[in-house]
Amino acid sequence: MKMNCAVITVGDELLSGRITDVNSPYITRELEAMGLDTAFHISVGDDPENIQAVLRFALEQCRAVIITGGLGPTQDDLTREAVAEGLGLKLIFREKIADLIRQRFQWMNREMAESNLKQAYIVEGAGTIDPVMGTAPGLILKLPAGKLVAMLPGVPAEMREMLGRGVLPALHDMGDRGPVRLRKSFKILGSTESEVAERVEKSLSGMGGLKLAYLASLSGIEVRVTAVAEDEIEAQARLAAAERRIRDELKMMVAASDSQGIEDVVGELLRQRGMTLALAESCTGGLVGEMVTRVPGSSDYFVGSVVSYSNRAKQELLGVSEEILATAGAVSSEAADAMARGARRAFGSDLAISITGIAGPGGGTPDKPVGTVFIGLAAEGVGAVRKLMLPLGREAVRSISATLALALIRVYLLGGDFAHFGE
Amino acid sequence: MKMNCAVITVGDELLSGRITDVNSPYITRELEAMGLDTAFHISVGDDPENIQAVLRFALEQCRAVIITGGLGPTQDDLTREAVAEGLGLKLIFREKIADLIRQRFQWMNREMAESNLKQAYIVEGAGTIDPVMGTAPGLILKLPAGKLVAMLPGVPAEMREMLGRGVLPALHDMGDRGPVRLRKSFKILGSTESEVAERVEKSLSGMGGLKLAYLASLSGIEVRVTAVAEDEIEAQARLAAAERRIRDELKMMVAASDSQGIEDVVGELLRQRGMTLALAESCTGGLVGEMVTRVPGSSDYFVGSVVSYSNRAKQELLGVSEEILATAGAVSSEAADAMARGARRAFGSDLAISITGIAGPGGGTPDKPVGTVFIGLAAEGVGAVRKLMLPLGREAVRSISATLALALIRVYLLGGDFAHFGE
Repeated sequence: MKMNCAVITVGDELLSGRITDVNSPYITRELEAMGLDTAFHISVGDDPENIQAVLRFALEQCRAVIITGGLGPTQDDLTREAVAEGLGLKLIFREKIADLIRQRFQWMNREMAESNLKQAYIVEGAGTIDPVMGTAPGLILKLPAGKLVAMLPGVPAEMREMLGRGVLPALHDMGDRGPVRLRKSFKILGSTESEVAERVEKSLSGMGGLKLAYLASLSGIEVRVTAVAEDEIEAQARLAAAERRIRDELKMMVAASDSQGIEDVVGELLRQRGMTLALAESCTGGLVGEMVTRVPGSSDYFVGSVVSYSNRAKQELLGVSEEILATAGAVSSEAADAMARGARRAFGSDLAISITGIAGPGGGTPDKPVGTVFIGLAAEGVGAVRKLMLPLGREAVRSISATLALALIRVYLLGGDFAHFGE
Repeated sequence: MKMNCAVITVGDELLSGRITDVNSPYITRELEAMGLDTAFHISVGDDPENIQAVLRFALEQCRAVIITGGLGPTQDDLTREAVAEGLGLKLIFREKIADLIRQRFQWMNREMAESNLKQAYIVEGAGTIDPVMGTAPGLILKLPAGKLVAMLPGVPAEMREMLGRGVLPALHDMGDRGPVRLRKSFKILGSTESEVAERVEKSLSGMGGLKLAYLASLSGIEVRVTAVAEDEIEAQARLAAAERRIRDELKMMVAASDSQGIEDVVGELLRQRGMTLALAESCTGGLVGEMVTRVPGSSDYFVGSVVSYSNRAKQELLGVSEEILATAGAVSSEAADAMARGARRAFGSDLAISITGIAGPGGGTPDKPVGTVFIGLAAEGVGAVRKLMLPLGREAVRSISATLALALIRVYLLGGDFAHFGE
């Protein structure tokens, strides 16, 4: 029997669209990487009869059913109860889990509401996946017919962690997978989706056993390459050959791969070179610093940032001259240059990056419309400014500028030229 | 029979998450506005057997089934065929629709591939909704059991237009709509999901016609209240009464409502009072500034931030004394206080907030474990520091600290006390 799966997400908020279901696509991609097909994504509200109905349907159709959500402590968290009822099983109180929950609250120095102990009930016969982030354990139920039901929390980070630690290994043990599929993704910065697709497809022409997918977002163009082959060695060889061709074609524009962000790549380079980084942010308001410091241990190379939202801050903290602000303006090549130099001086760093621009919706002029952004870079003996024109919404202008500022650092550290980054 | 609905979206790209399903939430909101419940969202790939299986399931469970996608001209568009096969109905060629499709191509001055005529087949007995944007007609099939199946294109704009023009009126004619439902949501900061649920439920005890849902995320606990009543006036009264009781119970912890974020609320308060804000961020790396500046026009009250990741930056840019750093340490009440005062001085702002903490995974000590965070607030004649213990992952520590820092500003501006925020 082909091993196919269904993903069920539980919660009224999913039906109303107040929350986008990010769990189902994530789970499907993880299953796909193991060679497992997902046949259905089903979202159902906090309604016990409806949850039971979809569970029955999913178990008729599929060998594995992964349910997320509805494991919390409140009265609208009904997954445990509905699964037990639907399968004719009891709920059993586990003192060990209760202790774990009490402990968690003690650590947080918080009063524990009795309702939290609801999470100590498990469906009869289920194995548990201990929580490391929240308080709800995940549950894995192996059914007599060789089927499996996994219940995971709805909070994406918790779900992901438990899926990888508890559910995927259990599915792996069930066997019967299809051909081997290996996948690698590349983050491309400094180009458009259609150009990237055209160049990638040209570079791979003549190669078989590859599937390509593109995903454009505010943090760049992601190219996903899947190599399909009968065995792992062949799939690996295919994927490696594809990677070589893509990198040869797109060169410096391939900024990161797989789950790496540009902030990880920049961090690694700074660490290798033993260099420190400072920032001067205006229109991004702190976003670049937030990205840099997502990386654990970033204090080894990141010293700090001045978010100079007001002109006064640009003058007093970064030493941008009154003359520049009065003549060229706060959004100008001159200001970006002075801000980067000022940040480097203020923090005593090896390298500094500045961003100043008009994120909109207000503040645009005919000369400098919304989306005009200057990025400055200062280092020993180096001063460079690039101008971007991003005729987009506030969030997009800020996100793209921040990502490209980091991409600029990477290109600088690799000794590349800045031609791909605006004017 | 209660009139409930299922939404089925068809397409491999929905399962892989390459495309986010925006149709299901849209349809659900439209149905909800008519008083109709949606029980399920189901996404299924381009597989005729799986499409038939979900159709059978949906028709068993619901009176109306709306299917989007799979009506196009290519070989992986299988919805028509699967629905016909699943219901034991024939596909019938309609010359009138074929003419319409040919005409459409003539207008566009394009050659028509023969495959486009596939779209001229309809499921036996179905009514058609003529296409005004694309070439595929929508189909509405009324089944003997008083049930309805609607098939619409997957392109969101086409789907929306046909839904409004053809499907909603047909559903309206089926009658039996439920009571009026009105909804409001509240963002609660400074408590746990279980405590919030307990207190909300206590405060509303004795009130009928209300549904509650909770959603915990890194930006707080959202409580959604739905008032259900026979008419709009009654539903409004019920919702207003529930809101009063919830606000009475949770008071200052109700930080925002509906789509507002805490950054919007803080921005509005600062603007009303004509006050300016500066920040000193350490472990959040710029996140608070990024949140504050998400709000268009925030430059009216936000002057800037020093992200002082290194100790040197804390000393030189914020004036934190070497003594504090050497004795109490960079993560301490004293440092938080000095950072807030320093930011207020450096930027000349009315108000300043500081955050210093250990986001992890490294850097914890027995005295100050990962998740120890101090938030400082400085204003004319005011200096306050709160300590949080957040035994969570790096991302969660940073997000929750940033949100609570903004919540602290709000409570200060409203003259509340800080008791809910840590120690």
